[in-house]
Amino acid sequence: MSTSELNTTAKELLSIRSMIAELEAEAEALTDKIKAVMAAVEEKGVKFQVGFNRRFDHNFAAIRKAYDAGKIGEAHILKITSRDPEPPNPAYIKVSGGIFLDMTIHDFDMACFLTNSDVEELYVNSAVLVDPAIGEQGDVDTAIITMKMANGALAVIDNSRRAAYGYDQRAELFGSKGMVATSNDTLSSAVISDENGVTGEKPLFFFLERYMASFSEEMRQFVDACENNTEVPVGIHAGMQSVKIGLAAKKSVAEHRPVKLSEIQ
Amino acid sequence: MSTSELNTTAKELLSIRSMIAELEAEAEALTDKIKAVMAAVEEKGVKFQVGFNRRFDHNFAAIRKAYDAGKIGEAHILKITSRDPEPPNPAYIKVSGGIFLDMTIHDFDMACFLTNSDVEELYVNSAVLVDPAIGEQGDVDTAIITMKMANGALAVIDNSRRAAYGYDQRAELFGSKGMVATSNDTLSSAVISDENGVTGEKPLFFFLERYMASFSEEMRQFVDACENNTEVPVGIHAGMQSVKIGLAAKKSVAEHRPVKLSEIQ
Amino acid sequence: MSTSELNTTAKELLSIRSMIAELEAEAEALTDKIKAVMAAVEEKGVKFQVGFNRRFDHNFAAIRKAYDAGKIGEAHILKITSRDPEPPNPAYIKVSGGIFLDMTIHDFDMACFLTNSDVEELYVNSAVLVDPAIGEQGDVDTAIITMKMANGALAVIDNSRRAAYGYDQRAELFGSKGMVATSNDTLSSAVISDENGVTGEKPLFFFLERYMASFSEEMRQFVDACENNTEVPVGIHAGMQSVKIGLAAKKSVAEHRPVKLSEIQ
Amino acid sequence: MSTSELNTTAKELLSIRSMIAELEAEAEALTDKIKAVMAAVEEKGVKFQVGFNRRFDHNFAAIRKAYDAGKIGEAHILKITSRDPEPPNPAYIKVSGGIFLDMTIHDFDMACFLTNSDVEELYVNSAVLVDPAIGEQGDVDTAIITMKMANGALAVIDNSRRAAYGYDQRAELFGSKGMVATSNDTLSSAVISDENGVTGEKPLFFFLERYMASFSEEMRQFVDACENNTEVPVGIHAGMQSVKIGLAAKKSVAEHRPVKLSEIQ
Repeated sequence: MSTSELNTTAKELLSIRSMIAELEAEAEALTDKIKAVMAAVEEKGVKFQVGFNRRFDHNFAAIRKAYDAGKIGEAHILKITSRDPEPPNPAYIKVSGGIFLDMTIHDFDMACFLTNSDVEELYVNSAVLVDPAIGEQGDVDTAIITMKMANGALAVIDNSRRAAYGYDQRAELFGSKGMVATSNDTLSSAVISDENGVTGEKPLFFFLERYMASFSEEMRQFVDACENNTEVPVGIHAGMQSVKIGLAAKKSVAEHRPVKLSEIQ
Repeated sequence: MSTSELNTTAKELLSIRSMIAELEAEAEALTDKIKAVMAAVEEKGVKFQVGFNRRFDHNFAAIRKAYDAGKIGEAHILKITSRDPEPPNPAYIKVSGGIFLDMTIHDFDMACFLTNSDVEELYVNSAVLVDPAIGEQGDVDTAIITMKMANGALAVIDNSRRAAYGYDQRAELFGSKGMVATSNDTLSSAVISDENGVTGEKPLFFFLERYMASFSEEMRQFVDACENNTEVPVGIHAGMQSVKIGLAAKKSVAEHRPVKLSEIQ
Repeated sequence: MSTSELNTTAKELLSIRSMIAELEAEAEALTDKIKAVMAAVEEKGVKFQVGFNRRFDHNFAAIRKAYDAGKIGEAHILKITSRDPEPPNPAYIKVSGGIFLDMTIHDFDMACFLTNSDVEELYVNSAVLVDPAIGEQGDVDTAIITMKMANGALAVIDNSRRAAYGYDQRAELFGSKGMVATSNDTLSSAVISDENGVTGEKPLFFFLERYMASFSEEMRQFVDACENNTEVPVGIHAGMQSVKIGLAAKKSVAEHRPVKLSEIQ
Repeated sequence: MSTSELNTTAKELLSIRSMIAELEAEAEALTDKIKAVMAAVEEKGVKFQVGFNRRFDHNFAAIRKAYDAGKIGEAHILKITSRDPEPPNPAYIKVSGGIFLDMTIHDFDMACFLTNSDVEELYVNSAVLVDPAIGEQGDVDTAIITMKMANGALAVIDNSRRAAYGYDQRAELFGSKGMVATSNDTLSSAVISDENGVTGEKPLFFFLERYMASFSEEMRQFVDACENNTEVPVGIHAGMQSVKIGLAAKKSVAEHRPVKLSEIQ
């Protein structure tokens, strides 16, 4: 791709970006806005990659790789733990769309990515246990979301807005032949044994520390796709799916019942 | 306690045991039968201990101990993984009451024990993924049960009737100040590093191997309670609770909705 | 074996035991005393088992089993870590024969057992770092012993009389195809994650806690050997070897040079 | 530092580099050559940093940090495991100076760095177990080096030219208050549990994979020292020390006895 081509692409990206910003400024029918973006991307024929960087994380990628290689057989149960070290400013929640759209959305994408399947139905069990101010915004800060995947697997995500020990990002995929599981990354493998016990380091503090390498890899693959004019690794369909799952989660909380994805247009 | 007292107690226990057997031979109103047992136990004034041996397991006891000591603060999220190495003979399921009453019932008790709270409501997400013959009995073999505890904590149990790597029995309790988690026990800590990877032993095969020490400890504490005429460590209330949770789980599957424990009489 | 046979054996054992006690009461030529015991055992034809209980420990036995099964190929490097939680009363050292005969002797036996080979030569690097009173007894409290095994493998033992975190008993055997390693046993697998780190339990406190099961297994196999009139699992040769290695270690410290086992008569 | 200054520095570095190359081309009196380099560096006043990159590795740095922070008290025993995945071409050994100068030299530096002390005396226990061609070059491929550090600590390094499972780089520092230990780095934390066991990834393949980040950090700190005209983090003294330790190791093998560093001029 030449510099001038890159510039053109960059301008188009910026134009799409402001289009998205405008769309997001409004409050309703988020899926309609994504459809508008999808149409714009389609029409202009630009490369559009959704920022689900965790797909490029070494640990999550290793789970998918083991699954694709048949190491665990058919997927039966997926478990994702995703806890932030600190809750956001409650003011942020007002504009973020709430925990399911600003935080769990990455876990929804991981659920689809790790099982290589869409979500069919979900049920949310949630509470306000971290900060009452979050509840006052009409949101929750602790949640267990259980899902039926389209390929028959069951899945569960547990979320908290505050883990005293740092950013907790783990997953395990259990299947007919076995299980693949990942643990948190730490600054070093140093373990201190003393009269208090045997103590290793806490998980890396937050997403910038934990996912730095995934951001580079994400960018590298996007540039590759642009240069070679191949498919981007995470298309807009993935973004649409995870937004729909997030909206279904909100509906499940509001109506206190399992919600099918097909209910979200 | 003298030998003759022991004999008397033993006879009474046997008489209660056959009463229970008779009651269990019938199919309906399981809770009524337990109420009958409760009345009999009350009337005869014998020591009656429910066989929830996992309360005496070194790992689960360590979680509760850390929680009681305030190490993790208020309980927010409990996660229990409980997977058997092999499914039972489908014929057994006919008489066992199904997965929630023959297998998950121990996990329901663990949920109550580890959070030191009763269950208020649950929702079951389940499937037949291990053996179609289990489905033909009207039961499921894979399940994720998510619960609201009476003390506000959220909980989730995941079950499978078959884990290729053996008996998988883990729990983690996450709270306002941190998390306590346990892993599986193995025959030894030996780890072999070779060109294939770094390989440790599988979990101990099944409940006899994993929980042998808990059975001894359970018996020891029961004998202690008899000798010193103190409260048994696991009373019949715990049994009643877990049976009710199991019945609520069956109802949740049948009616595909969250079920409150108060719906079960 | 009948009761009367058992009684006879017990009497002979007691007679041998007092013979040993007499021999041990004297200070010199320890190997001569063992030779006397060997002759007595031989003459009376009784079962004589040396109390090297670690051979019956689940972890060390797993290393040897992996080695025997060819999992790591030819043995190249053996590493044993053996540290006590607390130093003995310095008065004990006067009668114990010092660290190499009262403590390291078990590690010497492990070196022979795990590599299935005798020791050919050793060199000791040692110091008094834990308690000057130990040095005043002419003994050391910290040591690294490096050995050449008769089968060509190299081995190293590191000892300390005091580990702040408890009884540290680990081993790793490295060979042409890989490595097998074991870690310490703990009371439970509970790990607490909080703002201070991720903390597991300390090793079990001392040999009674760590090796309780090995003592039972040792006894069981001895009784088996008596009942079936088969070879005891640890004969007096093993005891003689480890005493000789201990004496060579003392000589290495005294003469500050590598010492061959053949120098010890 | 301006570009022209950088160019000047670069030229001087190159001139020193060719001086070193010349010196290294000869076979004897390696320490004399280093002294010549030291004099040249001194005279020209350039920044000279020895390439002991492991000092910048996150794991080894964490050990030293814990030690400096007083977490383990006084240093008693240091253990370093250092095994390569594959032996070099035997032809390389002819020019490399042998295992102690081409491979263990990094471990010698780690021994000094981790205990913050020089070496006083060492003894080498070694063998040819990996490849007879290495023995034919007059070198060994398997070694256990035990050392007395100037600060009183004991240390041990174990080396092999070939670990079937990859590059094995671990260390543990044991002291009066406890122990700090590090394990190997892997590509991901993924662990697969199946009927064969519970298997994690092998260590990263070799030094390029394992120490990539340390090379960047080493370079960054060197540039910092140049820009701010401060001391380089690893001066030529460190290089001289490790070369002397390597020569002492060769002498210990040749003369089969403990060798004091003061014997090496």
